[in-house]
Amino acid sequence: MTKHIGIVKTEYFTFGEHPHELKLESGAALGPITLAYETYGQLDEEKSNAILVLHALSGDAHAAGLHDGAKEPGWWDDLIGPGKGLDTNKYFVICSNVIGGCRGSTGPSSINPKTGQPYGLNFPIITIADIVKAQKHLIDYLGIKKLLSVVGGSMGGMQALQWVASFPQAVRSVIPIATSLKHSPQQIAFDEVGRQAVMADPAWCEGNYYDKKEKPIKGLAVARMIGHITYMSDKSMEEKFSRRLKEKNYSFKFSADFEVEGYLRYRGDTFVKRFDANSYLYITKAMDYFDLSANKLIHGDKRLDVRFLVIAFKSDWLYPAYQSQEIVRHLKIKGIDATYCEVKSTYGHDAFLLEVEEEAHLIKHFLHKTLKG
Amino acid sequence: MTKHIGIVKTEYFTFGEHPHELKLESGAALGPITLAYETYGQLDEEKSNAILVLHALSGDAHAAGLHDGAKEPGWWDDLIGPGKGLDTNKYFVICSNVIGGCRGSTGPSSINPKTGQPYGLNFPIITIADIVKAQKHLIDYLGIKKLLSVVGGSMGGMQALQWVASFPQAVRSVIPIATSLKHSPQQIAFDEVGRQAVMADPAWCEGNYYDKKEKPIKGLAVARMIGHITYMSDKSMEEKFSRRLKEKNYSFKFSADFEVEGYLRYRGDTFVKRFDANSYLYITKAMDYFDLSANKLIHGDKRLDVRFLVIAFKSDWLYPAYQSQEIVRHLKIKGIDATYCEVKSTYGHDAFLLEVEEEAHLIKHFLHKTLKG
Repeated sequence: MTKHIGIVKTEYFTFGEHPHELKLESGAALGPITLAYETYGQLDEEKSNAILVLHALSGDAHAAGLHDGAKEPGWWDDLIGPGKGLDTNKYFVICSNVIGGCRGSTGPSSINPKTGQPYGLNFPIITIADIVKAQKHLIDYLGIKKLLSVVGGSMGGMQALQWVASFPQAVRSVIPIATSLKHSPQQIAFDEVGRQAVMADPAWCEGNYYDKKEKPIKGLAVARMIGHITYMSDKSMEEKFSRRLKEKNYSFKFSADFEVEGYLRYRGDTFVKRFDANSYLYITKAMDYFDLSANKLIHGDKRLDVRFLVIAFKSDWLYPAYQSQEIVRHLKIKGIDATYCEVKSTYGHDAFLLEVEEEAHLIKHFLHKTLKG
Repeated sequence: MTKHIGIVKTEYFTFGEHPHELKLESGAALGPITLAYETYGQLDEEKSNAILVLHALSGDAHAAGLHDGAKEPGWWDDLIGPGKGLDTNKYFVICSNVIGGCRGSTGPSSINPKTGQPYGLNFPIITIADIVKAQKHLIDYLGIKKLLSVVGGSMGGMQALQWVASFPQAVRSVIPIATSLKHSPQQIAFDEVGRQAVMADPAWCEGNYYDKKEKPIKGLAVARMIGHITYMSDKSMEEKFSRRLKEKNYSFKFSADFEVEGYLRYRGDTFVKRFDANSYLYITKAMDYFDLSANKLIHGDKRLDVRFLVIAFKSDWLYPAYQSQEIVRHLKIKGIDATYCEVKSTYGHDAFLLEVEEEAHLIKHFLHKTLKG
C-alpha cells in the first residue's frame, strides 16, 4: 500500500464569469469561481470510468501522489493508486476541492472582483448543494456525463449524497463514508463552539484580517483542538496517550503536562499555518445547514438506477453508525440498492482516513460489481 | 420533592494564618484560607450524623434551600431537605466549597496577603488532595471526628474518593457519583481545550485581569460551551433541540440559526457573570492531576471499615460507566463493601443533577443501612 502514484500537480478550473455567476441556495450569486482539482489515472474513451473523490472539512484537492519536492503524499494516498482501492490502472480518479475553502478554490480569502479586496464576510454563505453545483461545472468541463462513482468521508460523504440529490442522472454509484443525512444538534454544537472560538479572537476583526499583521490563529487553534478530540475515540486516545506525562513529574504550572495536551497544542499550531479562519466558519456552516432527511436524498417515485455502499466505523462517535444506518434505511424505503458495512475500529471518526485496508477491500469489490452491473 | 429547606446562609471559616499555612501537594504553602460552607439540619449529640456534600467544577457551597430574596434554590435542592434523599430531619448536611474557586473560598481572585493584590497566577496550583485537606480543617472545626458519609458527583465524587484516601478513619461511607479514579486522556483533552480557550483570550493577560476593564469573558464562554456539550448526551440534545431553528428559515449569516446554538451562547454568557476565568484554569487542572488508580484509593492491607455506593449513568460519556466500574473493581479487590448502581438516563453527565428521584432512593437506602451497620 505504500506505492505512490508519482508526482502530481493541482490544476485549476475557472468558470462563472459575469453574467454567468453561480446562483447559490441563499439567492446570492458568486463568480468567477476557481476550483482546484487533481486527477489520477486515465479517462477511458467512453468516459465511463471516472470516480469523483470528495474531501472532509480541512482537506483539499491533493488526495494522492506527491507534489514535486514534497515528502508527504496526498491525504488519501493509501486508497488511491495503481492496484489500490481506487485503482488508477482502471479508473480515472478526480478529487475536487470545495468552494468556501482556502486551498486553491474560491473562498472568503479570495479577491472579490467587485472590490479588489479579499471577500472576508462579504463572501456569501454557501451550502453543500452549492459546493456540488460548482463541482458539476468541473465534471462537465472534463466532458464526463456520468460518474462511475462519487466517494467521500465525513463532509466528503455529504457531498457524495448531495450529488445524488442534485444530479441523480450523473452518478452510477455512491460511497458515503462516516457521514450523515444531517448534523445532529451535538454535531452542530461542536461546530458552533469552533466558530465561537474563532469569532471570540479579537484578531478575527469581523473577518477583515487579511491585511492585518495579526491573524485569528489563537481562536482557530482552539477550534481545531476541539475538532481533534471529536475525531478520535476515548479508546484511541487511551491507546495513543493514556496519562503519559511529557516530563517526569507534574509541572504544577499551566504548561502541557500530559502528552495529550502537547499533541492538541501541536495540532492546533500546525493547522493555523495551512487553514483560513473564515473558511473554517463557512465550511462548518455549510455542514450544519446540510439536511437531506425527509425524502430529500431521493426524490420522486421513479426508480433510480444508482447503487450505494455505506460505510460506518464502530468507534466513530462524531458521526455515529446510527446515522449511516439511517441513510441505508432511507435508501431501502426508496427501493435503492444499498450495502451497509460497519467496520470495526478504535480510531473514532479518523478511521475513514486510517482503516484503509478494510475500506479498500470494500470499495474495490463494490466498484467491480458496479462496473459489471 | 419541591419543599425547600427554607432560608439558608453561606458561612465562612478561616484558618491557616502564618505560620500555620496549608502545606500543598506542590510543596507551596497557602494561607490564610477561607472556606465557604453551608449546613442544613442538626448535628446530633454524638456528632455522628454529619454528611459532607461536595460540588462539581462550577458548583458552590449553596447546595440547598433559598438565600434570602433569591428565587432559585441551591444546586442540589431536590436531594437535600426534610424527607429528601439526604434527609435533613435525620442528618446534618454540610456542603463545602473548594479552594481555588471563586464562590467565597480562597482562590486566584482572592487578595494575596503578601502583595495586597489578587493572586492571579501567583496562586499555587492546587490538587484534589489539597482541596480535601482544607475541608478537613473545616470538619475538625465543626467538631466532627467521623463523617457518616461523603457524597459528590463529578469533581465532587473525586473529592469524596480523596477523603477516603487522605483520611480513611474520618469517613464511615462514601457515595461517588458519575466520577472516576482518574481522568482519561479524553477528559484531560476537553479540560485542556477549555483552558486554551481562556488563555487565548488577550483579555486574560496572563491572569492579571482583575483590575482591568476587560475580563477574559469571551474565552471563558467558549470553555463553558465546550463543557456543556460534554455534560449532555447526543440523545438528550436531540430530545431538547433536535434541528429546530430559532427563526423560520436559515439566516445565511453567522448568527445562531439553531436553537442549540442559541442555548450554548446563552449558557456561555451567563456563566462568565458568575465564574472567574483563573478559577476555571486551577480547578480543571486539579481534576486532571487527580489520580487514585494503582492502589492509591485504599492503601495498606489492613481492612478498612468503610462502605461505598458507586453510581453511574448510562448515557454519561464524559464520565463513562466503565470508570465507575473501575472504582468498584478496585474496592472489591481490597475487600471493601461496595454497591454499584448504573442508572438509566438519557441526560448524559448532567444526570447526576437531574435524575434525583432515583439517586434519592439509592442514597436513602444506603445511608439507612450504613447507620444500622
